[in-house]
Amino acid sequence: MNKKAIGYELIARDGQARSGALMTRRGIIETPVFMPVGTLGTVKGTRFEALEATDLDARIILGNTYHLWLRPGAEIIAECGGLHRFIGWERALLTDSGGFQVWSLGALRKITEEGTEFRSHVDGSLRFLSPEVSMEVQAALGSDIVMAFDECAPGNASHEEARESMLLTARWARRSRSRFCALQKEDMDAGHVDKRESPGDAQLSGAQALFGIVQGASHLELRRESLERTVEIGFDGYALGGLSVGEEKSVMYSVVEEIAPLMPPDSPRYLMGVGTPEDLVECVARGIDMFDCVLPTRNGRTGQAFTSRGKLNIKNAQWARDTRPLDEACVCSVCRRHSRAYLRHLYLTGEMLASILLTHHNLAFFLDTMRRVRQAIRSGDFTRFRREFLEGVNSGVA
Amino acid sequence: MNKKAIGYELIARDGQARSGALMTRRGIIETPVFMPVGTLGTVKGTRFEALEATDLDARIILGNTYHLWLRPGAEIIAECGGLHRFIGWERALLTDSGGFQVWSLGALRKITEEGTEFRSHVDGSLRFLSPEVSMEVQAALGSDIVMAFDECAPGNASHEEARESMLLTARWARRSRSRFCALQKEDMDAGHVDKRESPGDAQLSGAQALFGIVQGASHLELRRESLERTVEIGFDGYALGGLSVGEEKSVMYSVVEEIAPLMPPDSPRYLMGVGTPEDLVECVARGIDMFDCVLPTRNGRTGQAFTSRGKLNIKNAQWARDTRPLDEACVCSVCRRHSRAYLRHLYLTGEMLASILLTHHNLAFFLDTMRRVRQAIRSGDFTRFRREFLEGVNSGVA
Repeated sequence: MNKKAIGYELIARDGQARSGALMTRRGIIETPVFMPVGTLGTVKGTRFEALEATDLDARIILGNTYHLWLRPGAEIIAECGGLHRFIGWERALLTDSGGFQVWSLGALRKITEEGTEFRSHVDGSLRFLSPEVSMEVQAALGSDIVMAFDECAPGNASHEEARESMLLTARWARRSRSRFCALQKEDMDAGHVDKRESPGDAQLSGAQALFGIVQGASHLELRRESLERTVEIGFDGYALGGLSVGEEKSVMYSVVEEIAPLMPPDSPRYLMGVGTPEDLVECVARGIDMFDCVLPTRNGRTGQAFTSRGKLNIKNAQWARDTRPLDEACVCSVCRRHSRAYLRHLYLTGEMLASILLTHHNLAFFLDTMRRVRQAIRSGDFTRFRREFLEGVNSGVA
Repeated sequence: MNKKAIGYELIARDGQARSGALMTRRGIIETPVFMPVGTLGTVKGTRFEALEATDLDARIILGNTYHLWLRPGAEIIAECGGLHRFIGWERALLTDSGGFQVWSLGALRKITEEGTEFRSHVDGSLRFLSPEVSMEVQAALGSDIVMAFDECAPGNASHEEARESMLLTARWARRSRSRFCALQKEDMDAGHVDKRESPGDAQLSGAQALFGIVQGASHLELRRESLERTVEIGFDGYALGGLSVGEEKSVMYSVVEEIAPLMPPDSPRYLMGVGTPEDLVECVARGIDMFDCVLPTRNGRTGQAFTSRGKLNIKNAQWARDTRPLDEACVCSVCRRHSRAYLRHLYLTGEMLASILLTHHNLAFFLDTMRRVRQAIRSGDFTRFRREFLEGVNSGVA
């Protein structure tokens, strides 16, 4: 296999901000890109037809290895032909490694050199997740981008704690890579694509891609060391993990600002679990290509809309008779059709459609923001876009 | 106003079964027709785009006066331009009168000649609903078809009880008609359509239509008397109410069989709140044109799918690895894309998408059944269709 599993081609730069094309076995993805989160094989409240429609046009979504491993189980998904076929989605899928979810269990898990033992939040059964198991599950899922199994340190971790954690992540990264390669050779990838018809993808192997994860909490020298160790092992792409886990926002920005420019320029750079629309734009400005976050979906379900003028709480009485759309600058299918008054009524009466529509609008806002980011970078206008965007979201919804 | 608010043109008959065109101010509706229920201004779990898509193509949906009056209130909806504009739906809307919902409150309501006093299930406040109030609320909603305010008798009501209730309904029908006409003259209809562009609708007045309701429980002579009294008052269409309220199915069938053929042949006949797919086909065979029922939406939310081979409970373990669609004979967007295994996973993990997709499929099955019913009647093949359909739904899902 001399062909690569994934390709990244830089198209334009504007300062540290970059726009490129991420070539995957399931099509080309323009970057910077936002990936909606589909924890259990569904972007909550959203039909795949909606994700594919022009106002969202999500090119890649994320699945959670931990959650899918527990339910319905990797075996069932593999039997059904892998995660793409199981859920009915032909576009690209990225799966995380389960490391972060297991780490989030806190007292319910025990971390050793070998891996992590934990009790399932579903049935209380004892489970063991390791780099090898994570790679096996992700091969059974057949996602297009696999994440190495990592260990996360708390946002306020001491230098010593963070370094130990980072070194463990490095050892696990090597084991991840090793088991991942063996699985590819053993043909265990449920999502293997034999050949692609589009010329852009003809250079690809059709195999899964594997991304490494840089850890080190808020300690910049640990982050640099983690990056070196990760690049030394060699991955198809590189992620920044362990951010947006309780640290100050300024800390997150400074880690990204310091580390992103040091990441291999010819590989995609993925900032995991981040963030608000402002965070996305700010971290693009610092060199990031890929993002995922539950904010648009989760906050949609709790009645919060993201708009070009900031957040809007649909519960507020001020919208009771407001016939305007959530965001007057938005052309998504929700804003084209429905008023704040109607959405408020749906939310207050507990109707499922409130979650469905608010989630849709929020995803549209995140995805459209990234579309505009790409356009701004390509036209050399990113600085102005960034300033105007931040002014907008800070101006307040009236 | 010499033009009619609604038109009904018979296109074909096959035995008692009839197929026609119901002309409304918001387009022509082929009958027999099934109307999805949109209680609070939303067909639960379903986007309007899905209702409009070719696999559903719902031409008319129902709204509940009682529920919308309590939340968000008729005033807010009228201020937002009526129910169509409030919810973002340009096709036809029928609203019930609230009579049935108030009656269902049981001990929480008190019925007098004047109307019904009850406590709101939302905030416990004391409310009063009467023929006049119901007409006023339905005018504020601006629905295309308004239902007279009626009183329902229990399925097992004695002759005396049922006759009193039926006579009250007749007096309320007259008051409904009277207030309705006054409101139309007073221009209180929030959904008024000035002129229609399509030639078929050019004959229509653009006003709301009003349907009368035949009551009388299971007593055929009371039903006949009720029909006579209702027709004497004169309505744009006639409904059979007070069925599917706990009586034996054979009772419901015999009431429909006896009464439907006596209903004015040049007006639409609407069987309220009915029923299963078999009920729909059986009542079309007895002369009914219009149906509404919560079964496809409500049962979809509890994991039950209606299929051409009967009901399917998505929770069953037998579907855990089943890659087939819910119904192999169905071409709806859910069956074209998703497997039983995936839908079961969504349901068991409590994902909203389970309700969304099962509801969609169920609506597709009901609406497609009616499409096939219409085609069978028009091609003179309804008897065979009916036999094969019933054989199918009784054969059991494998």
